[in-house]
Order: sequence, then structure tokens, then C-alpha cells
Amino acid sequence: MTNIKDIAKMAGVSVTTVSRVLNNHPYVSEEKKAAVERAIQLSNYQRNINAVHLSKGKTFLIGVVIPFSNHPFFGSLVEGIATEAVENNYKLVLFQTNYKEEREMEALMMLRNKQIDALIICSRVCQWDVMEEYLSYGPIVLCEDAREREVSSTYINHYEVFSKALAYLHTKGHSKIGYCIGRKTGLNSKQREAAYKDFHEKIKEPILPEFIFDNCLYFEDGEKVVNKLRSLHNKPTALLVTSDQVAAGILTCCKEQNIPVPDELAILGFDNQPIAKVMNITTFEIPLVELGKKLFLQSIEHTISHEEIKVKLIERMTV
Amino acid sequence: MTNIKDIAKMAGVSVTTVSRVLNNHPYVSEEKKAAVERAIQLSNYQRNINAVHLSKGKTFLIGVVIPFSNHPFFGSLVEGIATEAVENNYKLVLFQTNYKEEREMEALMMLRNKQIDALIICSRVCQWDVMEEYLSYGPIVLCEDAREREVSSTYINHYEVFSKALAYLHTKGHSKIGYCIGRKTGLNSKQREAAYKDFHEKIKEPILPEFIFDNCLYFEDGEKVVNKLRSLHNKPTALLVTSDQVAAGILTCCKEQNIPVPDELAILGFDNQPIAKVMNITTFEIPLVELGKKLFLQSIEHTISHEEIKVKLIERMTV
Repeated sequence: MTNIKDIAKMAGVSVTTVSRVLNNHPYVSEEKKAAVERAIQLSNYQRNINAVHLSKGKTFLIGVVIPFSNHPFFGSLVEGIATEAVENNYKLVLFQTNYKEEREMEALMMLRNKQIDALIICSRVCQWDVMEEYLSYGPIVLCEDAREREVSSTYINHYEVFSKALAYLHTKGHSKIGYCIGRKTGLNSKQREAAYKDFHEKIKEPILPEFIFDNCLYFEDGEKVVNKLRSLHNKPTALLVTSDQVAAGILTCCKEQNIPVPDELAILGFDNQPIAKVMNITTFEIPLVELGKKLFLQSIEHTISHEEIKVKLIERMTV
Repeated sequence: MTNIKDIAKMAGVSVTTVSRVLNNHPYVSEEKKAAVERAIQLSNYQRNINAVHLSKGKTFLIGVVIPFSNHPFFGSLVEGIATEAVENNYKLVLFQTNYKEEREMEALMMLRNKQIDALIICSRVCQWDVMEEYLSYGPIVLCEDAREREVSSTYINHYEVFSKALAYLHTKGHSKIGYCIGRKTGLNSKQREAAYKDFHEKIKEPILPEFIFDNCLYFEDGEKVVNKLRSLHNKPTALLVTSDQVAAGILTCCKEQNIPVPDELAILGFDNQPIAKVMNITTFEIPLVELGKKLFLQSIEHTISHEEIKVKLIERMTV
């Protein structure tokens, strides 16, 4: 393989000049630059970038931890992260974890091993005390309320949003309200659970476990929810659904089974995905692409910051 | 920063032993291994993996080129690729290109620079003669019929599938058939166009440009298609829709506008995404996760292979 000395010889310049051209150093004459580029092309010289990274201590790779690749919520988030990465000349290393802790650990190990410059964790299972040990190796950015932590975060105040949503449904006459969620664990879910509990205490209604549906991620999960609802003697009159996909699935099922929405069942979605627009679903708009962009920018910053993303109620036909 | 010599000294072993422990070499006693691990922990020694990669010439990173992160077709494909990557202890570097050539070039440059071991291109804009120059730097795997090329590929025979789909609609009484597609360029689209042309020659019907709808990628694009259809005096009686998302959008719009499906408009989808199941859309099932898995396995093989993925007609209610 041709090395930098061969290139210098071919171009009739010094090794330093070749190095300067390779690193886009400004103080090289156009003439010499052209000669070096010609020599590189002729010799098909490959610069081993890993060697370059080794000397610079930077990889221009940012790790992104997501539980699933094939979910519109994370799809939109990655879209935002990827858009800003391109702008800043970074590449992304994707870790699809399926919420398995060992896969999150692999991402943390790569940060430790300097294979990535920073790590964005969009959703996690691993505990804070585990993650904390890796903070000295590079920036970790979280998509959750981490204001009390020594990491940057862009987050939605899920306690506040859920409280708002419940209050909105209550003003519409509902006091038997259920909710559908991806998983019951995780900080975001815990915040929602707390809001749900506080709301029920306030309106002096008991919490019924059969009104809470977990593992609700995809359109097809809506069918499962509606079937379970039908089997209940005491039914909720409204559902807070943390994903528009699931809300759309529930609405489609209700239409098929002639359950009038919102008269018999009100449906309030989250995200304002395109499907919510087309199916006229009342929902909370979360600017996910925006959120993704902010997460990326925090990952390349040298300071710790916390940004709250505001959501907006979009009133349509399902409440 | 502690180096390998310090670790050796602390553990009371040779540098070779430390190196063996770091590389999981079998010939190290449990006792010495424990001593080294203790020393590493105490000193918080970070092994610079880029240095390891430099000596081994492998990164265990595979590049994945996709046009969009936020589309269920590519979401399923990445899901398959990521699943097999985890199994084989590789990580993925994601290139979201939005079909911009310069972003595909960046992925090719990373292959050239040995920053990734191989490159999977799920969909591309860049020409074959450009890509060809990069073949010597590492495996490139394509998700298109590349049987005549010196790269591995897993593909759908889109000519055959489109011909089959058109013949199926024809046996159902349709001769005015339109189609909806993501983009008109690209090999897969060209194969479909050829099948469409040959079908029309066979049934002696003219091709009407207004029956072909491009830029159809998402659910919400269905609305656009239905509105355009309504403005046509001479309308197609059936639509071949290359994405179930778009098919679902068209079906939803037809329902809202009281256009009877399939009586006034037959809709034939592609992929068999969950939404097609729930909305009872007749579709061609493409095992996308399977396809993704195969693409990954080809990227780490040392031989060139070509695998055709077979699709299956799922008859439901929209044709």
C-alpha cells in the first residue's frame, strides 16, 4: 500500500505538505494541493482514518440507543437526530436494544472505548447508577427529565402533560378514564402513572387496574385494547393513548364494531403523527423531529443543558 | 492515562499477559486474569479500541444506507439488519440520505477509509460506475437485483411481481389500472415500469401518464392520490400501490368520500404491513425483516451471493 512518503515523492512536495492537504490545512498553495490530489488519485492511496482518529481522539460518530427501529415515534426521533448529524458532519451508530440491558451496556462500552464521541439514549432500561460510571468517558444525552442529573437532556414533562390531558377529558365530562402505554416501567411511564394517581385522588375516584393497558406500541395493538374493553362490565368512557398509532388502531376497530367515538368512547392520542391528522384524532402534538435535533446538538456540546419540549393540544373529532 | 505497562506492574504480571487478558486469549491462568482485571478496575484503564482496530483492520461496524429513517418499509428492513447485527456482535452506522448523492458518497468514503467493514445500500441514487470504484475497499451489498454485478444482493424480482399483480387485477376484470410509487427513478422502479409497459402492450391498452402517481410514501399521500383521481374524467378502476401505508391512506380517504372499494376502485398494496391486516387490504407480503437479515449476513460473508426473496399474494377485501 502506498504511504504518505510515496505520495510526497510522486507529487514532488514534502511529507508535511501532503499531511496538510489531507487535513485541509489552509496554508497550502493551490498548485501543490493539486499535485498532491493528483498523486493520491494515481496511487489510490487510502488514508487509514482510524489512525487519524487515534491521533485526534475523535471519531465523529455519535451512538443512538433506541428500543425499536420500526416504530414511528423512534423513527421521527432518529430522523431529527440524523438530520442534525448530517449538518454537523457526524455519523450515527445505531443500537437497537429491544429494551435488553446488555445491549445498552454495549453502547456504553463503545463510549468507554472511544469508538463513539457521545451517546444519545432515547429510551432505556438500565439504571442510573450503572450509567453514571460511564459519564467520564464522554457526553451522554437523555430523552427524559434529567434535570437533577449530570447529563444533558431534552425532555417532555410527562407529569404535566398527562395531568393536562386528564383535566381536559374531565372538563369534557369524563371521570372513568383509562390509558394505553408502551411499558409500565421507565421514568416517563412512572411520571404518567403519578399524574394518573394524583388526578384520581383529586376527583376522588378509585384507580381500576383493568383501565390501564400496557404493551401498546403499534396500530394492531388497538384491536387488543378494544376487545379487552368489550369484555369489561364497567367500562372507561375515555382513553388516553400514548401513541397515535395505537389510537388509530383503536378508532379503526371502534368503527368496525360500531362503537361510536367519542360518544361511547373518547380517544385522546399523543405525537400528532400524520395518521392522527388523516383520521381526525384529537391528540397532543409532540415535535419529535425538533426533539431529535436538540438531542443531537446536546451530544456535541461541551456543557450540560436541559431543554423542555412543549406539547400542544390539537382538538379534532375523537374527544 | 495509565498504560499497559502500568497495569502489568500493578498486577505483577508481564505486558504480554495483560495484552492476552485484554484480548480474551485462552492461555492465561484464572489467577493472573483476576489480577489484571483488578488492576484495570483500580486504574480505570481505557483501552483505545481504535488502536486495536488499527492493528486488526476490523471495526465491527457495518454501514447502512437508507433514504428515510421514518418510513415503515425501511424501518422493517433496519429492524432485520439490526437483529442479525446484534447476533453477530456488529454495530450499525446509519446513513440517512434523503436520496442525496453526496450522502451516499460519504458512506462509500467511510468504507474506503476503513471506518466500516462493509456497506449495505437499501436504496440508492448514485450510479453503478461511481459505486464500482469502491468495491475493492470492502463488501457492498445491495437490496436490488444485482445478479449481473460483482456485489452481493438480496432482492425482489419487481418485474415478475408487478406482472403478477397486473395479471391478477386483469383476471378480476380490470384493464384500466394505475399505480402509486415512491419515486420513478431507481432500478426497482424501472423494473416495475417495464412490467407495466409490457402488460399494456399485451392487453393492447394505452399507457396514460395520469394513471401513474409518484412521491407516494406515507399514509397522508393517499389523500393526494384520491383527490387527483376525482379530478380525472377517465378514471382507473384499480390501483397497484407499492406501499401499504399509502394504500391505507387511499382506503381511508375513499371511505370518507363514499367511494366504494373495491366496486369503484380496487386497491392492491405491497409489504403486508400490520396496517394492511387491520384494514383488510389485499396485498403482496414481502418478508422485510427476513430481507434485512439476509442483507446483513451477506455483508459479513467473503463471497458474493444473490438471493431472491419471494413475495406472496394475501387476498383480503380491497380487490
